[in-house]
Amino acid sequence: MKKIRAAVVGYGNIGHYAVQALEAAPDFEIAGIVRRNGAENKPAELSQYDVVKDIRELKDVDVAILATPTRSVEKYAKEILALGINTVDSFDIHTQIPALRHTLDESAKAGNAVSIISAGWDPGSDSVVRTMLQAIAPKGITYTNFGPGMSMGHTVAVKAVEGVKAALSMTIPTGTGIHRRMVYIEVKEGYEFDKVAAAIKADPYFVNDETHVVQVQDVDELLDMGHGVNLTRKGVSGKTQNQLFEFNMRINNPALTGQVLVCVARAAMRQQPGCYTMIEIPVVDLLPGERDEWIGHLV
Amino acid sequence: MKKIRAAVVGYGNIGHYAVQALEAAPDFEIAGIVRRNGAENKPAELSQYDVVKDIRELKDVDVAILATPTRSVEKYAKEILALGINTVDSFDIHTQIPALRHTLDESAKAGNAVSIISAGWDPGSDSVVRTMLQAIAPKGITYTNFGPGMSMGHTVAVKAVEGVKAALSMTIPTGTGIHRRMVYIEVKEGYEFDKVAAAIKADPYFVNDETHVVQVQDVDELLDMGHGVNLTRKGVSGKTQNQLFEFNMRINNPALTGQVLVCVARAAMRQQPGCYTMIEIPVVDLLPGERDEWIGHLV
Repeated sequence: MKKIRAAVVGYGNIGHYAVQALEAAPDFEIAGIVRRNGAENKPAELSQYDVVKDIRELKDVDVAILATPTRSVEKYAKEILALGINTVDSFDIHTQIPALRHTLDESAKAGNAVSIISAGWDPGSDSVVRTMLQAIAPKGITYTNFGPGMSMGHTVAVKAVEGVKAALSMTIPTGTGIHRRMVYIEVKEGYEFDKVAAAIKADPYFVNDETHVVQVQDVDELLDMGHGVNLTRKGVSGKTQNQLFEFNMRINNPALTGQVLVCVARAAMRQQPGCYTMIEIPVVDLLPGERDEWIGHLV
Repeated sequence: MKKIRAAVVGYGNIGHYAVQALEAAPDFEIAGIVRRNGAENKPAELSQYDVVKDIRELKDVDVAILATPTRSVEKYAKEILALGINTVDSFDIHTQIPALRHTLDESAKAGNAVSIISAGWDPGSDSVVRTMLQAIAPKGITYTNFGPGMSMGHTVAVKAVEGVKAALSMTIPTGTGIHRRMVYIEVKEGYEFDKVAAAIKADPYFVNDETHVVQVQDVDELLDMGHGVNLTRKGVSGKTQNQLFEFNMRINNPALTGQVLVCVARAAMRQQPGCYTMIEIPVVDLLPGERDEWIGHLV
């Protein structure tokens, strides 16, 4: 069987775990890794791979896994789709997903390629669950409760507050889609904790949530990449009330994102040119091998 | 907007709830109900509908919802697909699904129609969850735990045992996909409970499970159409162990099946001719209206 040749673009946390997921997948081979510094200070675990500055330096790439910051996804995707290479990403600004899909749909069709966007766990696998529950209980309310786990976006926001030396913002679910923010900070010398804490609580990222700021000696000692979701729906099927559904996960956050990206990289090989979100892809396409066999095992 | 015209074939529990789900759906109209006795003893709630003996008596049917016994699905589906009408069913003999799919794929393509099979909750919506979890944690074990709830198949098996006047077999989950059978029976006059109970426990449906038989005065007083699922997977994403997933439902069993059938009846209008299981259909196709809007809400 010819293997799918994947490039990983970006080598932060997600890129690291995407490489692991590719290594574990039976139907992929790694065409190379694209990073800003190319082969300079190449990490030991990449010693067997081509590490380059530009994807055009790699041979026969079928699909590029964009493990870049979310805000760079559009730029990279457009460039790579224009080369006729499929792209997948975990773009996570929920409100901007429809617009990105339209833009990349044009780029993908122009390049005769496939793009699958916003494919992590939320947006991503959670979206598949939310969509199915909306369908099978059309009236009702879905709550997505995140955590406990580190929020990347909120942590970055705290670090930008004056007087913060190091920070960690944890998302704590309190039910019905409401979250508490537990913010752990080291304070820079010459700053008062109380004033820094007040500034954090006044930040747009925190002003609407119950936020607690705690001073610690060493934020690094608190870091843990575990995360979780509790997604619930109570709704109506036909005319029958009180249908209850719940989806729970406790997972290593970047490891799951890396794995989902590899699944959609595979699925991209099976779609018509264009741009898709995960809810537009048959779930069986996420799996390696033959459809017939999985139908026997899983349906 | 032109509405989808659906016929319901069979009017037992599932047919009843399928009609309710069609009535609640914004994009459907009921073309009619097909039942063995036609309009004879027509139930009051169907007074506004055509109730006929043969689907050919109904006008402009887009899709037929087969709410017949599982063993009649193939026969009805073949006949109806040959008329160029899409079919959906909740065929639930797991081991026979791949063969049915191949057979009906031929019939569907010959009739230029679409068939979606095994679309209830298990097989059905659970299959979608199992498939996605298999993809995002490729190594590991999935357990599907059913109940507490009534097992139709086991109840029928008990009723066939000599000396049983009325019966109910409840499925009780004891974890890791293992189930206890709680069997409630009324005993016919002239039969000894102990001997009837022993015969039930020796039946192939029960011989491999922990089975308890209880004598009651009135089985009817115990009947409840509530059911449940607890589906778990502990697995590996990439090279990261101990990723934990869980899907739970507490639902009215035929109401959920009726609703899922209506969702796939809609999805059938959006597929290319052929036969599909639910894991081969994008979940967004289960929803009414415009894809773009759902992507904004649900992804």
